[in-house]
Amino acid sequence: MLLMDCPDRRGLVARVSTLLYEQGANILHADQHRDDELGQFFMRVEWALNGKNGGPQFDLEQFQQVFWPLACDLEMRWTLTSSAHRTHVALFCSRYLHCVADLLQRWHTGELRCEIPVIVSNHRDAEPLARFYGIEFVHVPVTPETRAEAEARQFAILDAHGIELVVLARYMQVLSADFVNRYPGQIINVHHSFLPAFTGARPYHAAHGRGVKLIGATSHYVTEVLDEGPIIEQDVARISHRDQVEDLVARGRDLERVVLSRAVRWHLESRILRYGNKTVVFD
Amino acid sequence: MLLMDCPDRRGLVARVSTLLYEQGANILHADQHRDDELGQFFMRVEWALNGKNGGPQFDLEQFQQVFWPLACDLEMRWTLTSSAHRTHVALFCSRYLHCVADLLQRWHTGELRCEIPVIVSNHRDAEPLARFYGIEFVHVPVTPETRAEAEARQFAILDAHGIELVVLARYMQVLSADFVNRYPGQIINVHHSFLPAFTGARPYHAAHGRGVKLIGATSHYVTEVLDEGPIIEQDVARISHRDQVEDLVARGRDLERVVLSRAVRWHLESRILRYGNKTVVFD
Amino acid sequence: MLLMDCPDRRGLVARVSTLLYEQGANILHADQHRDDELGQFFMRVEWALNGKNGGPQFDLEQFQQVFWPLACDLEMRWTLTSSAHRTHVALFCSRYLHCVADLLQRWHTGELRCEIPVIVSNHRDAEPLARFYGIEFVHVPVTPETRAEAEARQFAILDAHGIELVVLARYMQVLSADFVNRYPGQIINVHHSFLPAFTGARPYHAAHGRGVKLIGATSHYVTEVLDEGPIIEQDVARISHRDQVEDLVARGRDLERVVLSRAVRWHLESRILRYGNKTVVFD
Amino acid sequence: MLLMDCPDRRGLVARVSTLLYEQGANILHADQHRDDELGQFFMRVEWALNGKNGGPQFDLEQFQQVFWPLACDLEMRWTLTSSAHRTHVALFCSRYLHCVADLLQRWHTGELRCEIPVIVSNHRDAEPLARFYGIEFVHVPVTPETRAEAEARQFAILDAHGIELVVLARYMQVLSADFVNRYPGQIINVHHSFLPAFTGARPYHAAHGRGVKLIGATSHYVTEVLDEGPIIEQDVARISHRDQVEDLVARGRDLERVVLSRAVRWHLESRILRYGNKTVVFD
Repeated sequence: MLLMDCPDRRGLVARVSTLLYEQGANILHADQHRDDELGQFFMRVEWALNGKNGGPQFDLEQFQQVFWPLACDLEMRWTLTSSAHRTHVALFCSRYLHCVADLLQRWHTGELRCEIPVIVSNHRDAEPLARFYGIEFVHVPVTPETRAEAEARQFAILDAHGIELVVLARYMQVLSADFVNRYPGQIINVHHSFLPAFTGARPYHAAHGRGVKLIGATSHYVTEVLDEGPIIEQDVARISHRDQVEDLVARGRDLERVVLSRAVRWHLESRILRYGNKTVVFD
Repeated sequence: MLLMDCPDRRGLVARVSTLLYEQGANILHADQHRDDELGQFFMRVEWALNGKNGGPQFDLEQFQQVFWPLACDLEMRWTLTSSAHRTHVALFCSRYLHCVADLLQRWHTGELRCEIPVIVSNHRDAEPLARFYGIEFVHVPVTPETRAEAEARQFAILDAHGIELVVLARYMQVLSADFVNRYPGQIINVHHSFLPAFTGARPYHAAHGRGVKLIGATSHYVTEVLDEGPIIEQDVARISHRDQVEDLVARGRDLERVVLSRAVRWHLESRILRYGNKTVVFD
Repeated sequence: MLLMDCPDRRGLVARVSTLLYEQGANILHADQHRDDELGQFFMRVEWALNGKNGGPQFDLEQFQQVFWPLACDLEMRWTLTSSAHRTHVALFCSRYLHCVADLLQRWHTGELRCEIPVIVSNHRDAEPLARFYGIEFVHVPVTPETRAEAEARQFAILDAHGIELVVLARYMQVLSADFVNRYPGQIINVHHSFLPAFTGARPYHAAHGRGVKLIGATSHYVTEVLDEGPIIEQDVARISHRDQVEDLVARGRDLERVVLSRAVRWHLESRILRYGNKTVVFD
Repeated sequence: MLLMDCPDRRGLVARVSTLLYEQGANILHADQHRDDELGQFFMRVEWALNGKNGGPQFDLEQFQQVFWPLACDLEMRWTLTSSAHRTHVALFCSRYLHCVADLLQRWHTGELRCEIPVIVSNHRDAEPLARFYGIEFVHVPVTPETRAEAEARQFAILDAHGIELVVLARYMQVLSADFVNRYPGQIINVHHSFLPAFTGARPYHAAHGRGVKLIGATSHYVTEVLDEGPIIEQDVARISHRDQVEDLVARGRDLERVVLSRAVRWHLESRILRYGNKTVVFD
């Protein structure tokens, strides 16, 4: 699968698709997008690895070599991934386990195609869940004073497992700029509000205070500025005056589960292209 | 119909419903709400004016006299309205006419039970529409320098028509504090974002810039602080990276129509109770 | 908490609320509904058991005695439940575990206030999950020939645990009329379509075949006629031509979880009144 | 703009996009879809007519000649439309005018890019609306006995105005097979239910009777079998036990407006491909 973006120019699709054709790719899905303001072109192409109906076998190595000059010529950012590859994911959580439990259940049923070798938490609540699914659990307590050490331990864990994606499943600690920069576009968080409304702590309390009629949740890539990273997915639910803060919290759990799991799935399926502070999601 | 709120205390429902029963009211709908934090009780009761099945006729005047001592005793804010009464509404608009056209169409088909004697605008675009529906149209140009005079003219128009509700249907001028205070809880506005996100001007541009995945619209009572009044209704629509600002504007029009017309209908049906900076909507 | 319905007549609310007041109840929430066609009145009242702010203690036994003559006089169907009581629930499932896993997780976090003493299945897949949550698991295989015996075993299990609610969480066997009649209004099922569209087997295939643009799920009480019982909750999700049957199945799992868990929660909180083939849900 | 579908084969995208490139097209948007079951490939390509940034001018005539052999070779169904062309649309309605009023308002504001030379109705209610927008209104009464004559008159009107699309905006008469076959894929209807639930007459009554928790509306191409044509768009709204049939009717009007106007817009923008009894909608 090829995920790419580059400055728009005439003949782009023709050149890329002709090259794929010549290399024997049988395209299953292709999606393009052109941002008029930026003059940027985005494309996702998915093709069958082995030729359907007796077509020729597709050679990923060879394609990469042939594709390289074209990509350079077009000033392309690109990632080529094999659907055979399973991304290594680490789940970070604290005491609220609904998102972790949901991700694990979806992973278990095959909805999320990835490896989850480790769960990291600053609390012990998720340990039984990790054990149930046969996943290593590491307890890394964090205090403001010990954050640097804690992150050093976390880096060691992530390195040991070859982690390519960190999912903050209601992890209640703020990551350092150092952490964020180590994993550019590889950390997904869920915020329990409809961003940019109600950034920061206790968004359900803020929503209740403002008297909104819908609450929301947002999954996004983590950048140095808290709650400001590129948004991947959002959803909302209707509430009424009958709902107290605790009702918002309960309703919100369903939203958080859904927006986080969608973001993780789309990332795993190479459907997301970041550009500026936004995302293109090829669904 | 009775709309009321007061400090919560035991026996409230019993006292009010017994009084209604003794006065011969046949309750059609009743809805209550209790805000636990504030200890405030809210109620809406709707009853048949003439006794169904040969029951006694209900006398609104007499009820008011009997109800008065109870209301005082319970420290009640209350409004008693007859469903025979039709609220006098003025529509304010500028150049975008989708909300005005929608409200007029709903009024014409009987969905909005009210009188609309006048449309006021700082542009002339709505004039043919007003004429089509046989409604007086008044052109009141506004500049920063002439706002005071313009509002004086508007007050005269509103007074002449006995206006009880002003609907800002994409009226692009900010009302003075004086105007707002003259019509407390009687001015409804539609803001083209999911408040409190994207307050101020050009919210669709701001939403596009932030890369949100849903856009929204909000109807609210107007208070002195712009975009901060009690929210009545909100709704959202899904967008994607394919949508440019002009697509958001087009999608948003449908949201604006829906949230504004609902707010107006609920207000006309005495379904909305304001308290603090929030609303209880008895639907 | 009192859940009741009876033929509508004047003074109903006054009589019930006065009686509650005299017995010292401090009403927290009350909701009423009147069906105009049937002339039937529905009410749900929730009150604090112990007097708030030093008010008198509420005596449920005594209330029942006092309420009895009133209920007879008004030809009332009524249930009086104490919020201290925790309903005994049995989960039935087959091989798809997403609904069971979801219900258990919600139960574990306290969102569903009930006892779940037993999980019954015609397959063994749910056994580890049951063990994880410390719940008894009983494997009851069913074939068309052995259904009667299997149900006899199931009845014994349900009796042994004092089961008051049976939740069919994607249980792929049809219950006999005998079973259904033993638990009137006490069996909740989830059907993976927007009923009444696509009744019967393989609704996602049928939806794909018809080319619908939204798929749905429905939770309902089970009656003798398959997929025809009173609907409790429904929800839908948008799909597109890009979605194959397996995508519908995946999207649908989220809907099934949500509509089933809501139905179970509302039932546990005595929010549902059945009448004819419909439900009133006091949310 | 090119809208096409053909049996899937390797190299399709490469061949089409190379041809477009060679003819000087600057692709703005392209969307593809492949139906795995049918092995059918669908594509929509939109390009700038005049070369951006001083690129060469695109010649539609010449492209057609060059494209013809390729299309034959690939067994393609295709339509080539110029965005300069404005489709001629006739609106058919009866007594409910909310859909007609909505379409006219959207047309007036430029949201629907088309010509609307005529409104045809079996009643006179829409006449003032037609006059307001300066559109010819033709009153064609229909009775079961006179349907053939009425349709003959309608054909004459449609021919006289070069009508390419007939929109049934709550037109309460069933068209003959003859009519339907004269305009294959050129008649769009709105049905006021979530099809395939509640086909036939009085769907809101049926929905109320069944006790559903959501109501819906569906826009679709008209085929010989009533309510069975390819679905273009659907939407739903939440209702509750408080809603009587007349509330469903009112809520439903908003749904009808939205699903019908979307269908018309997508048709006008050549975004819809019919295949079998389904549609691919490239949004």
